Amino acid sequence: MAARTPDLRLIVVTDSALAAPHSISDIVAAALDAGAPAIQLRDKRATAREIVAQAHVLLPAIRSAGALLFINDRLDVALAIGADGVHLGPVDLTVEAARRITPPDFLIGYSTDDADEARRAERHGASYIGCGAVFGTTTKQEVGNERIGTARLHEVACAVHIPVVGIGGITPENVQEVRATAAAGVAVVGAVMRAVEVGDVVRRLLR
Amino acid sequence: MAARTPDLRLIVVTDSALAAPHSISDIVAAALDAGAPAIQLRDKRATAREIVAQAHVLLPAIRSAGALLFINDRLDVALAIGADGVHLGPVDLTVEAARRITPPDFLIGYSTDDADEARRAERHGASYIGCGAVFGTTTKQEVGNERIGTARLHEVACAVHIPVVGIGGITPENVQEVRATAAAGVAVVGAVMRAVEVGDVVRRLLR
Repeated sequence: MAARTPDLRLIVVTDSALAAPHSISDIVAAALDAGAPAIQLRDKRATAREIVAQAHVLLPAIRSAGALLFINDRLDVALAIGADGVHLGPVDLTVEAARRITPPDFLIGYSTDDADEARRAERHGASYIGCGAVFGTTTKQEVGNERIGTARLHEVACAVHIPVVGIGGITPENVQEVRATAAAGVAVVGAVMRAVEVGDVVRRLLR
Repeated sequence: MAARTPDLRLIVVTDSALAAPHSISDIVAAALDAGAPAIQLRDKRATAREIVAQAHVLLPAIRSAGALLFINDRLDVALAIGADGVHLGPVDLTVEAARRITPPDFLIGYSTDDADEARRAERHGASYIGCGAVFGTTTKQEVGNERIGTARLHEVACAVHIPVVGIGGITPENVQEVRATAAAGVAVVGAVMRAVEVGDVVRRLLR
């Protein structure tokens, strides 16, 4: 577990396809301005070199906002650019393998909707759990698109001591249902990437 | 530069599509038996989890042969499984970024057919250069398929102090042309992956 308690009330997960025609950096800047405490850079089709380049564009704004940067999947990129953490899913490095090569205060997120698997990830050094898809989703492939509902999210959040973040179909309209569970926060892709008013959506998600 | 001088007379680069219907592990085992001193595990379509699984299958034979294991692109996987090194190309992490998060004796290979870029990679901590495509190729996309010839390989090999390994279309029939240059070794994909007699091909490549 990380030495600090990270602020994971809202993780904005990037998706350049959903963001188009806007750029990831414009959307991230607006989200940070509105108080988003964490950004996860995710682009499964990008090369390591491209992720590094994108991270270098985003990092100054993230640092000056005092926010956290997570990199999806590519732990090597995360470590090389000095990101705060990595987010791992079922086809990525295991938490155990990742923890072998990371400093103790480096954050490792892991996706699971299963309480036992969440407990195992915690034992192996995960810093938080991403749990979903809470309301189903059209944007996230890695964990499966099955709607798990808030009861299951609550169950997983109660199973571990590390923060659990709900993901999947979360919007300003349904976020209160998630806040009513033991989850520490929400991760959002589409609602922010496709927002007409990014700042407004972020503020409502944080409220 | 790595503290030790690695044996790079022959790097067998895996390609599961070319290997079919044979398995990578059977081919690697035969290559090691015939004296191959280094294996590079490369599968651009595989997930991190799959590369880890494949490496765990190969490692016992590689270790008992006293050979080296390189992982293509995924430095995080290479570090997490205790591989000897990583091989990086132009779309991967830079050598400079990779060296920031690797122990000094961890080997970093870098693909380039340019003498200046090879010198820069050496300055940034590369352990060896992969240079090609010497005779053109039908199997390797990362560096381009352009035939550079042995004169260019020799030029790059003379430009740096670290070992330079020729790659691209090298077979038992033309390997002597490469051995006649200043290159320290050869990297081979198709000639070994598609070989009817892997051991025989490896022995002829090493002769």
